[in-house]
Amino acid sequence: MDITSDSHGKHISEQFNHELDALKTHLLAMGGLVEKQLQDAVTALLEGDSETATRVRDNDKAVNDMQLKIDDECTRVLARRQPAASDLRLVLAVIRATSDLERIGDESSKIARNAISLVENGQSPRGMVEVRHLSQHVRSMVRDSLTAFARFDTDLALKVLREDASVDLEYQSAMRSLMTFMMEDARQITPVLNVMWILRALERIGDHADNLAEYVIFLVKGVDVRHTDTHDLKPQDLDKK
Amino acid sequence: MDITSDSHGKHISEQFNHELDALKTHLLAMGGLVEKQLQDAVTALLEGDSETATRVRDNDKAVNDMQLKIDDECTRVLARRQPAASDLRLVLAVIRATSDLERIGDESSKIARNAISLVENGQSPRGMVEVRHLSQHVRSMVRDSLTAFARFDTDLALKVLREDASVDLEYQSAMRSLMTFMMEDARQITPVLNVMWILRALERIGDHADNLAEYVIFLVKGVDVRHTDTHDLKPQDLDKK
Repeated sequence: MDITSDSHGKHISEQFNHELDALKTHLLAMGGLVEKQLQDAVTALLEGDSETATRVRDNDKAVNDMQLKIDDECTRVLARRQPAASDLRLVLAVIRATSDLERIGDESSKIARNAISLVENGQSPRGMVEVRHLSQHVRSMVRDSLTAFARFDTDLALKVLREDASVDLEYQSAMRSLMTFMMEDARQITPVLNVMWILRALERIGDHADNLAEYVIFLVKGVDVRHTDTHDLKPQDLDKK
Repeated sequence: MDITSDSHGKHISEQFNHELDALKTHLLAMGGLVEKQLQDAVTALLEGDSETATRVRDNDKAVNDMQLKIDDECTRVLARRQPAASDLRLVLAVIRATSDLERIGDESSKIARNAISLVENGQSPRGMVEVRHLSQHVRSMVRDSLTAFARFDTDLALKVLREDASVDLEYQSAMRSLMTFMMEDARQITPVLNVMWILRALERIGDHADNLAEYVIFLVKGVDVRHTDTHDLKPQDLDKK
Protein backbone atom coordinates (compact mmCIF):
# COMPACT_ATOMS: atom_id res chain seq x y z
CA MET A 1 0.00 0.00 0.00
CA ASP A 2 1.36 3.40 -0.91
CA ILE A 3 0.03 6.35 1.01
CA THR A 4 0.46 8.66 -1.94
CA SER A 5 -1.51 6.46 -4.35
CA ASP A 6 -5.22 6.01 -4.98
CA SER A 7 -6.00 4.25 -1.68
CA HIS A 8 -5.44 7.56 0.10
CA GLY A 9 -6.78 9.93 -2.53
CA LYS A 10 -4.95 11.67 -5.36
CA HIS A 11 -2.89 14.77 -4.77
CA ILE A 12 -3.03 17.74 -7.02
CA SER A 13 0.68 18.19 -6.83
CA GLU A 14 3.15 15.59 -8.05
CA GLN A 15 5.82 17.45 -6.13
CA PHE A 16 3.89 16.96 -2.89
CA ASN A 17 3.69 13.19 -3.56
CA HIS A 18 7.36 13.22 -4.10
CA GLU A 19 8.02 15.06 -0.83
CA LEU A 20 5.92 12.62 1.18
CA ASP A 21 7.67 9.66 -0.45
CA ALA A 22 11.02 11.26 0.35
CA LEU A 23 10.06 11.66 4.03
CA LYS A 24 9.22 8.01 4.26
CA THR A 25 12.37 6.96 2.39
CA HIS A 26 14.56 9.09 4.63
CA LEU A 27 12.91 7.73 7.77
CA LEU A 28 13.55 4.17 6.58
CA ALA A 29 17.16 5.04 5.77
CA MET A 30 17.55 6.35 9.31
CA GLY A 31 15.93 3.12 10.53
CA GLY A 32 18.45 1.10 8.52
CA LEU A 33 21.36 2.97 10.05
CA VAL A 34 19.97 2.53 13.56
CA GLU A 35 19.40 -1.21 13.00
CA LYS A 36 23.02 -1.51 11.89
CA GLN A 37 24.21 0.40 14.97
CA LEU A 38 22.26 -1.96 17.23
CA GLN A 39 23.52 -5.04 15.43
CA ASP A 40 27.15 -3.85 15.52
CA ALA A 41 26.91 -2.89 19.20
CA VAL A 42 25.65 -6.35 20.12
CA THR A 43 28.23 -8.12 17.92
CA ALA A 44 31.03 -5.99 19.39
CA LEU A 45 29.85 -6.90 22.86
CA LEU A 46 29.50 -10.62 22.26
CA GLU A 47 32.81 -10.86 20.42
CA GLY A 48 34.71 -8.49 22.72
CA ASP A 49 35.57 -6.34 19.71
CA SER A 50 36.36 -2.88 21.02
CA GLU A 51 37.19 -1.48 17.57
CA THR A 52 33.64 -2.08 16.33
CA ALA A 53 32.28 -0.78 19.65
CA THR A 54 34.25 2.44 19.24
CA ARG A 55 32.92 2.86 15.69
CA VAL A 56 29.33 2.45 16.94
CA ARG A 57 29.91 5.03 19.64
CA ASP A 58 31.36 7.51 17.13
CA ASN A 59 28.62 6.87 14.54
CA ASP A 60 25.94 8.10 16.91
CA LYS A 61 26.47 11.59 15.54
CA ALA A 62 25.35 10.43 12.08
CA VAL A 63 22.08 9.17 13.59
CA ASN A 64 21.54 12.50 15.35
CA ASP A 65 22.22 14.42 12.14
CA MET A 66 19.64 12.35 10.28
CA GLN A 67 17.05 13.14 12.94
CA LEU A 68 17.62 16.88 12.60
CA LYS A 69 17.51 16.70 8.81
CA ILE A 70 14.29 14.68 8.65
CA ASP A 71 12.56 16.77 11.34
CA ASP A 72 13.46 19.89 9.42
CA GLU A 73 12.01 18.33 6.24
CA CYS A 74 8.81 17.55 8.16
CA THR A 75 8.50 21.11 9.42
CA ARG A 76 8.92 22.43 5.88
CA VAL A 77 6.32 20.03 4.46
CA LEU A 78 3.86 21.09 7.19
CA ALA A 79 4.48 24.79 6.56
CA ARG A 80 4.37 24.73 2.77
CA ARG A 81 1.93 21.92 1.97
CA GLN A 82 -0.39 22.08 4.96
CA PRO A 83 -1.25 18.39 4.64
CA ALA A 84 -4.51 16.96 5.95
CA ALA A 85 -5.89 13.54 6.88
CA SER A 86 -3.56 10.62 6.12
CA ASP A 87 -0.83 12.90 4.74
CA LEU A 88 -0.78 14.86 7.99
CA ARG A 89 -0.69 11.61 9.94
CA LEU A 90 2.29 10.44 7.88
CA VAL A 91 4.24 13.61 8.70
CA LEU A 92 3.35 13.39 12.40
CA ALA A 93 4.26 9.70 12.50
CA VAL A 94 7.64 10.49 10.92
CA ILE A 95 8.31 13.26 13.48
CA ARG A 96 7.52 10.89 16.34
CA ALA A 97 9.44 8.01 14.77
CA THR A 98 12.69 9.98 14.34
CA SER A 99 12.66 10.64 18.07
CA ASP A 100 12.37 6.92 18.89
CA LEU A 101 14.97 5.96 16.30
CA GLU A 102 17.34 8.54 17.74
CA ARG A 103 16.86 6.99 21.17
CA ILE A 104 17.46 3.47 19.82
CA GLY A 105 20.70 4.88 18.39
CA ASP A 106 21.50 6.37 21.79
CA GLU A 107 20.88 3.09 23.61
CA SER A 108 23.01 1.23 21.03
CA SER A 109 25.79 3.65 21.72
CA LYS A 110 25.39 2.97 25.48
CA ILE A 111 25.69 -0.77 24.75
CA ALA A 112 28.88 -0.03 22.80
CA ARG A 113 30.32 2.05 25.67
CA ASN A 114 29.62 -0.73 28.16
CA ALA A 115 31.19 -3.24 25.74
CA ILE A 116 34.33 -1.11 25.69
CA SER A 117 34.46 -1.08 29.53
CA LEU A 118 34.06 -4.85 29.63
CA VAL A 119 36.89 -5.38 27.13
CA GLU A 120 39.13 -2.92 28.99
CA ASN A 121 38.60 -4.72 32.27
CA GLY A 122 39.50 -7.97 30.55
CA GLN A 123 36.68 -9.85 32.21
CA SER A 124 34.58 -12.48 30.56
CA PRO A 125 31.40 -11.56 32.35
CA ARG A 126 28.38 -13.61 33.31
CA GLY A 127 25.05 -12.95 31.66
CA MET A 128 26.13 -13.09 28.02
CA VAL A 129 23.63 -15.87 27.23
CA GLU A 130 20.87 -13.61 28.54
CA VAL A 131 22.16 -10.65 26.50
CA ARG A 132 22.27 -12.76 23.35
CA HIS A 133 18.66 -13.94 23.76
CA LEU A 134 17.24 -10.57 24.66
CA SER A 135 19.12 -8.85 21.85
CA GLN A 136 17.82 -11.28 19.23
CA HIS A 137 14.30 -10.67 20.44
CA VAL A 138 14.65 -6.89 20.51
CA ARG A 139 16.39 -6.72 17.14
CA SER A 140 13.54 -8.60 15.50
CA MET A 141 11.08 -6.15 17.08
CA VAL A 142 12.99 -3.20 15.62
CA ARG A 143 13.20 -4.85 12.21
CA ASP A 144 9.49 -5.73 12.21
CA SER A 145 8.43 -2.27 13.31
CA LEU A 146 10.41 -0.72 10.44
CA THR A 147 9.00 -3.22 7.94
CA ALA A 148 5.53 -2.42 9.26
CA PHE A 149 6.27 1.28 8.61
CA ALA A 150 7.58 0.57 5.12
CA ARG A 151 4.49 -1.49 4.17
CA PHE A 152 1.90 0.31 6.32
CA ASP A 153 1.26 -3.16 7.73
CA THR A 154 -0.85 -2.95 10.90
CA ASP A 155 -0.88 -6.73 11.40
CA LEU A 156 2.88 -6.74 11.69
CA ALA A 157 2.68 -3.68 13.97
CA LEU A 158 0.29 -5.59 16.24
CA LYS A 159 2.72 -8.51 16.29
CA VAL A 160 5.45 -6.14 17.57
CA LEU A 161 3.13 -4.83 20.29
CA ARG A 162 2.39 -8.37 21.44
CA GLU A 163 6.14 -9.18 21.63
CA ASP A 164 6.87 -6.43 24.11
CA ALA A 165 5.35 -8.23 27.11
CA SER A 166 7.58 -11.26 26.56
CA VAL A 167 10.66 -9.05 26.20
CA ASP A 168 9.81 -7.52 29.58
CA LEU A 169 9.55 -10.96 31.19
CA GLU A 170 12.82 -12.06 29.63
CA TYR A 171 14.48 -8.85 30.87
CA GLN A 172 13.25 -9.34 34.43
CA SER A 173 14.38 -12.94 34.55
CA ALA A 174 17.83 -11.97 33.20
CA MET A 175 18.14 -9.24 35.83
CA ARG A 176 17.34 -11.74 38.58
CA SER A 177 20.08 -14.11 37.36
CA LEU A 178 22.58 -11.28 37.27
CA MET A 179 21.70 -10.22 40.79
CA THR A 180 22.48 -13.78 41.92
CA PHE A 181 25.88 -13.69 40.19
CA MET A 182 26.67 -10.46 42.03
CA MET A 183 25.75 -11.86 45.40
CA GLU A 184 27.81 -14.98 44.82
CA ASP A 185 30.96 -13.11 43.94
CA ALA A 186 31.58 -9.48 44.90
CA ARG A 187 34.46 -9.25 42.39
CA GLN A 188 31.82 -9.61 39.67
CA ILE A 189 29.95 -6.48 40.75
CA THR A 190 31.52 -4.06 38.27
CA PRO A 191 31.27 -6.23 35.12
CA VAL A 192 27.82 -7.48 36.08
CA LEU A 193 26.64 -3.87 36.45
CA ASN A 194 27.91 -3.22 32.91
CA VAL A 195 25.82 -6.16 31.71
CA MET A 196 22.82 -4.87 33.66
CA TRP A 197 23.06 -1.49 31.91
CA ILE A 198 23.21 -3.34 28.60
CA LEU A 199 20.09 -5.35 29.42
CA ARG A 200 18.31 -2.17 30.48
CA ALA A 201 19.31 -0.54 27.16
CA LEU A 202 17.93 -3.52 25.23
CA GLU A 203 14.68 -3.38 27.18
CA ARG A 204 14.35 0.34 26.37
CA ILE A 205 14.98 -0.41 22.69
CA GLY A 206 12.07 -2.86 22.83
CA ASP A 207 9.90 -0.03 24.19
CA HIS A 208 10.94 2.23 21.33
CA ALA A 209 10.13 -0.49 18.76
CA ASP A 210 6.75 -0.69 20.46
CA ASN A 211 6.28 3.06 19.97
CA LEU A 212 7.19 2.76 16.29
CA ALA A 213 4.55 0.06 15.87
CA GLU A 214 1.98 2.33 17.54
CA TYR A 215 2.75 5.11 15.06
CA VAL A 216 2.15 2.71 12.16
CA ILE A 217 -1.32 2.01 13.54
CA PHE A 218 -1.97 5.73 14.05
CA LEU A 219 -0.78 6.44 10.53
CA VAL A 220 -2.83 3.77 8.76
CA LYS A 221 -5.93 3.60 10.93
CA GLY A 222 -6.03 7.08 12.47
CA VAL A 223 -6.35 5.67 16.00
CA ASP A 224 -3.92 6.43 18.78
CA VAL A 225 -3.23 3.16 20.63
CA ARG A 226 -0.54 4.56 22.93
CA HIS A 227 -1.27 3.76 26.57
CA THR A 228 -3.95 1.24 25.65
CA ASP A 229 -3.50 -2.35 26.62
CA THR A 230 -2.21 -3.53 23.26
CA HIS A 231 -1.43 -6.99 24.51
CA ASP A 232 -4.71 -8.50 23.35
CA LEU A 233 -5.46 -5.99 20.60
CA LYS A 234 -6.81 -7.66 17.47
CA PRO A 235 -6.93 -6.28 13.91
CA GLN A 236 -10.71 -5.76 14.07
CA ASP A 237 -10.36 -3.66 17.25
CA LEU A 238 -8.55 -1.01 15.25
CA ASP A 239 -11.52 -0.50 12.96
CA LYS A 240 -14.04 -0.51 15.79
CA LYS A 241 -12.29 2.19 17.79
CA MET B 1 5.83 37.64 25.65
CA ASP B 2 2.71 36.05 24.22
CA ILE B 3 3.02 34.14 20.99
CA THR B 4 -0.49 35.03 19.92
CA SER B 5 0.01 38.79 20.40
CA ASP B 6 1.58 41.45 18.22
CA SER B 7 5.20 40.28 18.67
CA HIS B 8 4.36 37.28 16.51
CA GLY B 9 1.86 38.89 14.17
CA LYS B 10 -1.92 39.15 14.43
CA HIS B 11 -4.21 36.28 13.54
CA ILE B 12 -7.32 36.68 11.50
CA SER B 13 -9.23 34.34 13.68
CA GLU B 14 -9.82 34.98 17.37
CA GLN B 15 -10.79 31.35 17.67
CA PHE B 16 -7.39 30.29 16.37
CA ASN B 17 -5.67 32.48 19.00
CA HIS B 18 -7.80 30.85 21.58
CA GLU B 19 -6.87 27.35 20.37
CA LEU B 20 -3.14 28.10 20.48
CA ASP B 21 -3.47 29.56 23.99
CA ALA B 22 -5.38 26.47 25.06
CA LEU B 23 -2.62 24.17 23.74
CA LYS B 24 -0.04 26.04 25.77
CA THR B 25 -2.24 26.10 28.88
CA HIS B 26 -2.91 22.38 28.62
CA LEU B 27 0.77 21.60 28.16
CA LEU B 28 1.63 23.62 31.27
CA ALA B 29 -1.13 21.85 33.21
CA MET B 30 0.41 18.53 32.18
CA GLY B 31 3.78 19.93 33.27
CA GLY B 32 2.33 20.85 36.65
CA LEU B 33 0.97 17.34 37.15
CA VAL B 34 4.29 15.79 36.16
CA GLU B 35 6.22 18.10 38.51
CA LYS B 36 3.89 17.03 41.34
CA GLN B 37 4.43 13.36 40.48
CA LEU B 38 8.19 13.81 40.61
CA GLN B 39 8.05 15.73 43.87
CA ASP B 40 5.75 13.17 45.51
CA ALA B 41 7.87 10.24 44.29
CA VAL B 42 11.01 11.74 45.81
CA THR B 43 9.25 12.67 49.08
CA ALA B 44 7.76 9.17 49.32
CA LEU B 45 11.21 7.71 48.82
CA LEU B 46 13.02 9.93 51.32
CA GLU B 47 10.32 9.52 53.96
CA GLY B 48 9.70 5.81 53.31
CA ASP B 49 6.03 6.61 52.68
CA SER B 50 4.65 3.74 50.61
CA GLU B 51 1.13 5.16 50.54
CA THR B 52 2.26 8.26 48.64
CA ALA B 53 4.48 6.08 46.43
CA THR B 54 1.49 3.91 45.52
CA ARG B 55 -0.55 7.00 44.67
CA VAL B 56 2.22 8.26 42.36
CA ARG B 57 2.40 4.90 40.63
CA ASP B 58 -1.38 4.85 40.11
CA ASN B 59 -1.52 8.49 38.93
CA ASP B 60 0.71 7.73 35.96
CA LYS B 61 -2.41 6.93 33.96
CA ALA B 62 -3.62 10.53 34.37
CA VAL B 63 -0.35 11.77 32.84
CA ASN B 64 -0.71 9.39 29.91
CA ASP B 65 -4.31 10.49 29.34
CA MET B 66 -3.21 14.13 29.22
CA GLN B 67 -0.60 13.32 26.59
CA LEU B 68 -3.16 11.64 24.33
CA LYS B 69 -5.62 14.50 24.78
CA ILE B 70 -3.10 17.25 24.01
CA ASP B 71 -1.58 15.39 21.06
CA ASP B 72 -5.05 14.95 19.64
CA GLU B 73 -5.69 18.68 20.07
CA CYS B 74 -2.41 19.40 18.23
CA THR B 75 -3.38 17.15 15.33
CA ARG B 76 -6.73 18.90 15.03
CA VAL B 77 -5.15 22.37 15.10
CA LEU B 78 -2.69 21.32 12.38
CA ALA B 79 -5.45 19.86 10.21
CA ARG B 80 -7.97 22.67 10.56
CA ARG B 81 -5.82 25.78 10.97
CA GLN B 82 -2.74 24.87 8.95
CA PRO B 83 -0.52 27.10 11.06
CA ALA B 84 2.72 28.56 9.71
CA ALA B 85 5.89 30.11 11.14
CA SER B 86 5.86 30.61 14.91
CA ASP B 87 2.36 29.13 15.28
CA LEU B 88 3.50 25.93 13.58
CA ARG B 89 6.58 25.86 15.78
CA LEU B 90 4.40 26.20 18.87
CA VAL B 91 2.29 23.20 17.85
CA LEU B 92 5.37 21.11 17.03
CA ALA B 93 7.05 22.11 20.30
CA VAL B 94 3.93 21.06 22.22
CA ILE B 95 3.84 17.68 20.44
CA ARG B 96 7.48 17.06 21.31
CA ALA B 97 7.08 18.35 24.85
CA THR B 98 4.16 16.05 25.72
CA SER B 99 6.38 13.09 24.85
CA ASP B 100 9.13 14.25 27.24
CA LEU B 101 6.64 15.11 29.98
CA GLU B 102 5.10 11.67 29.63
CA ARG B 103 8.54 10.13 30.06
CA ILE B 104 9.26 12.26 33.14
CA GLY B 105 5.97 10.91 34.50
CA ASP B 106 7.11 7.40 33.65
CA GLU B 107 10.46 7.83 35.39
CA SER B 108 8.70 9.31 38.45
CA SER B 109 6.54 6.25 38.56
CA LYS B 110 9.69 4.07 38.41
CA ILE B 111 11.09 6.02 41.36
CA ALA B 112 7.84 5.35 43.24
CA ARG B 113 8.00 1.61 42.46
CA ASN B 114 11.58 1.40 43.71
CA ALA B 115 10.55 3.34 46.84
CA ILE B 116 7.85 0.73 47.47
CA SER B 117 10.41 -2.10 47.16
CA LEU B 118 12.74 -0.36 49.58
CA VAL B 119 9.98 0.10 52.17
CA GLU B 120 8.85 -3.51 51.75
CA ASN B 121 12.35 -4.80 52.34
CA GLY B 122 12.53 -2.70 55.49
CA GLN B 123 16.04 -1.51 54.74
CA SER B 124 17.33 1.95 55.34
CA PRO B 125 19.56 2.02 52.29
CA ARG B 126 22.76 3.86 51.58
CA GLY B 127 22.84 6.59 48.99
CA MET B 128 19.92 8.69 50.19
CA VAL B 129 22.07 11.81 50.53
CA GLU B 130 23.05 11.45 46.88
CA VAL B 131 19.42 10.92 45.85
CA ARG B 132 18.34 14.03 47.75
CA HIS B 133 20.97 16.22 46.07
CA LEU B 134 20.42 14.92 42.57
CA SER B 135 16.64 15.16 42.92
CA GLN B 136 16.80 18.79 44.03
CA HIS B 137 18.96 19.60 41.06
CA VAL B 138 16.77 17.75 38.57
CA ARG B 139 13.53 19.13 39.98
CA SER B 140 14.78 22.67 39.55
CA MET B 141 15.68 21.86 35.91
CA VAL B 142 12.15 20.58 35.27
CA ARG B 143 10.61 23.62 36.95
CA ASP B 144 12.84 26.05 35.02
CA SER B 145 12.20 24.36 31.68
CA LEU B 146 8.43 24.66 32.24
CA THR B 147 8.76 28.31 33.31
CA ALA B 148 10.88 28.93 30.20
CA PHE B 149 8.07 27.40 28.12
CA ALA B 150 5.42 29.48 29.89
CA ARG B 151 7.33 32.73 29.33
CA PHE B 152 9.07 31.87 26.04
CA ASP B 153 12.24 32.67 27.94
CA THR B 154 15.30 31.47 26.00
CA ASP B 155 17.74 32.74 28.66
CA LEU B 156 16.17 30.47 31.23
CA ALA B 157 16.16 27.64 28.66
CA LEU B 158 19.90 28.14 28.16
CA LYS B 159 20.39 28.00 31.94
CA VAL B 160 18.65 24.58 31.97
CA LEU B 161 20.92 23.34 29.17
CA ARG B 162 24.00 24.42 31.08
CA GLU B 163 22.80 22.58 34.22
CA ASP B 164 22.66 19.21 32.51
CA ALA B 165 26.42 18.68 32.45
CA SER B 166 26.68 19.15 36.21
CA VAL B 167 23.75 16.77 36.78
CA ASP B 168 25.63 14.15 34.76
CA LEU B 169 28.77 14.62 36.88
CA GLU B 170 26.75 14.41 40.09
CA TYR B 171 25.05 11.24 38.81
CA GLN B 172 28.36 9.57 37.95
CA SER B 173 29.88 10.40 41.31
CA ALA B 174 26.79 9.07 43.12
CA MET B 175 26.97 5.83 41.12
CA ARG B 176 30.59 5.36 42.08
CA SER B 177 29.77 5.75 45.80
CA LEU B 178 26.96 3.23 45.50
CA MET B 179 29.23 0.74 43.78
CA THR B 180 31.58 1.02 46.76
CA PHE B 181 28.74 0.36 49.22
CA MET B 182 27.86 -2.76 47.26
CA MET B 183 31.37 -4.09 47.29
CA GLU B 184 31.72 -3.48 51.00
CA ASP B 185 28.61 -5.39 51.92
CA ALA B 186 26.99 -7.96 49.65
CA ARG B 187 23.77 -7.83 51.70
CA GLN B 188 23.35 -4.26 50.44
CA ILE B 189 23.25 -5.34 46.77
CA THR B 190 19.46 -5.47 46.39
CA PRO B 191 18.61 -2.16 48.10
CA VAL B 192 21.58 -0.40 46.51
CA LEU B 193 20.42 -1.57 43.08
CA ASN B 194 17.03 -0.02 43.85
CA VAL B 195 18.79 3.25 44.64
CA MET B 196 20.84 2.95 41.43
CA TRP B 197 17.66 2.64 39.35
CA ILE B 198 16.33 5.71 41.12
CA LEU B 199 19.47 7.71 40.32
CA ARG B 200 19.28 6.56 36.72
CA ALA B 201 15.64 7.68 36.56
CA LEU B 202 16.60 11.10 37.94
CA GLU B 203 19.40 11.44 35.41
CA ARG B 204 16.95 10.61 32.59
CA ILE B 205 14.53 13.23 33.94
CA GLY B 206 17.35 15.77 33.67
CA ASP B 207 17.76 14.78 30.00
CA HIS B 208 14.05 15.29 29.37
CA ALA B 209 14.16 18.74 31.04
CA ASP B 210 17.03 19.47 28.67
CA ASN B 211 14.87 18.47 25.72
CA LEU B 212 12.06 20.74 26.93
CA ALA B 213 14.52 23.65 27.08
CA GLU B 214 15.63 22.89 23.51
CA TYR B 215 12.02 23.05 22.30
CA VAL B 216 11.64 26.50 23.89
CA ILE B 217 14.61 27.72 21.86
CA PHE B 218 13.22 26.12 18.69
CA LEU B 219 9.85 27.69 19.37
CA VAL B 220 11.07 31.23 20.04
CA LYS B 221 14.13 31.44 17.79
CA GLY B 222 13.31 28.89 15.10
CA VAL B 223 16.67 27.14 15.54
CA ASP B 224 17.00 23.47 16.38
CA VAL B 225 19.74 23.16 19.01
CA ARG B 226 19.29 19.44 19.63
CA HIS B 227 22.58 17.57 19.34
CA THR B 228 24.60 20.78 19.40
CA ASP B 229 27.02 21.36 22.20
CA THR B 230 24.76 23.57 24.28
CA HIS B 231 27.17 23.74 27.15
CA ASP B 232 28.75 27.01 26.07
CA LEU B 233 25.82 28.30 24.03
CA LYS B 234 25.23 32.02 24.61
CA PRO B 235 22.08 34.05 23.92
CA GLN B 236 23.68 35.78 20.92
CA ASP B 237 24.55 32.42 19.32
CA LEU B 238 20.86 31.73 18.89
CA ASP B 239 20.41 34.78 16.69
CA LYS B 240 23.55 34.12 14.66
CA LYS B 241 22.58 30.57 13.73
